[in-house]
Amino acid sequence: MTDTTETTSNEPILFYFDFSSPYAYIAAHKIDQIAALYGREVDWRPTLLGAIFQQTGAKPLTETGLKAEYSKHDFLRTTRSFGLPFTMPDSFPFASIAAARTVWWLRDRDPALSRKVALAIFDKAFAEGGDVRGAEAVIAIAAEHGVDPDELRAALNDPAVKERLKTEVNASMDAGVCGAPFFIVDGEPFWGSDRLDQVERWLATGGW
Amino acid sequence: MTDTTETTSNEPILFYFDFSSPYAYIAAHKIDQIAALYGREVDWRPTLLGAIFQQTGAKPLTETGLKAEYSKHDFLRTTRSFGLPFTMPDSFPFASIAAARTVWWLRDRDPALSRKVALAIFDKAFAEGGDVRGAEAVIAIAAEHGVDPDELRAALNDPAVKERLKTEVNASMDAGVCGAPFFIVDGEPFWGSDRLDQVERWLATGGW
Repeated sequence: MTDTTETTSNEPILFYFDFSSPYAYIAAHKIDQIAALYGREVDWRPTLLGAIFQQTGAKPLTETGLKAEYSKHDFLRTTRSFGLPFTMPDSFPFASIAAARTVWWLRDRDPALSRKVALAIFDKAFAEGGDVRGAEAVIAIAAEHGVDPDELRAALNDPAVKERLKTEVNASMDAGVCGAPFFIVDGEPFWGSDRLDQVERWLATGGW
Repeated sequence: MTDTTETTSNEPILFYFDFSSPYAYIAAHKIDQIAALYGREVDWRPTLLGAIFQQTGAKPLTETGLKAEYSKHDFLRTTRSFGLPFTMPDSFPFASIAAARTVWWLRDRDPALSRKVALAIFDKAFAEGGDVRGAEAVIAIAAEHGVDPDELRAALNDPAVKERLKTEVNASMDAGVCGAPFFIVDGEPFWGSDRLDQVERWLATGGW
């Protein structure tokens, strides 16, 4: 859609994601552009699918029989349709705790930088198929964007930083986040990169 | 999209569905129109999510914690966005075996009629929120379209008709169907009403 009529609200779009979701990788490359068309900011909020799956009883798509083969095919076709490179990481799904802690910690210091680092982590994982599981892998990515490695390393061992992620994961579930990516636009929840078109129409029209 | 360039193939689009899926109800109202733009027929193939869920480990969306509340909300919003009425049936998810057997049986006699009856069953369930679980409920809907009630009642008790559905459900899983609705376009699989836009682009472009 090209209609850029703004609704009266200018609340940020809440964007919840887990770094291990290929569909969140797609959303991470699209949501800021969509928001900008309607004069909105995006609030990037890492969460953990592991905790959410415990609540919903879901399993990673690639561990679900017939869905596994379909999902791997769909990741490729759908990223191609968005013009994004895609390489499946050797280890998938992967632990994204270090990445999520890093982004929450950075966010309190420099929100714009935390978003750049978040996108770089997504690209490392899914454009390059790289390993972003360990603290050192994330520290190396952040360092490329000017984050001091020693400071981040210390932060990742700080109980307060660990607690912060736990609090945010619980808050995401309290907000109804049942998968990733997940968006909340003026209180309206949308789950999945499949719903980016509805997110855009909601912004354009104020809802239906 | 309004580009109606046809690809070289004129193979029918395979449309797999379970009558108890609200997203299949959406697809049932859209897929023939999309196919017609590209000179394609649609092959309507009822299957059973119960059997597929045993294979994939999935549960009905409304029985999955946080996903349950979201799903009920999304059914309403998404049907509204397609301009379709929606009423949640009192019993959901519901047994769709009688409906599926009916459509396979009718299909061998009159494919066009079987499609009309299939759409009428979907509308009874999700436009009206009616009960389509029992054989008599399905027989009543079919009768409105000129199907002889006694003949259909006998068919629904015929072991060959029961066996036919089993064979088709197994065939759907052999074809990779991992949920509903599910489409196969020239060998390419698409899962979900969310993928109708990709189905249309695939028909328009021959794939990417």
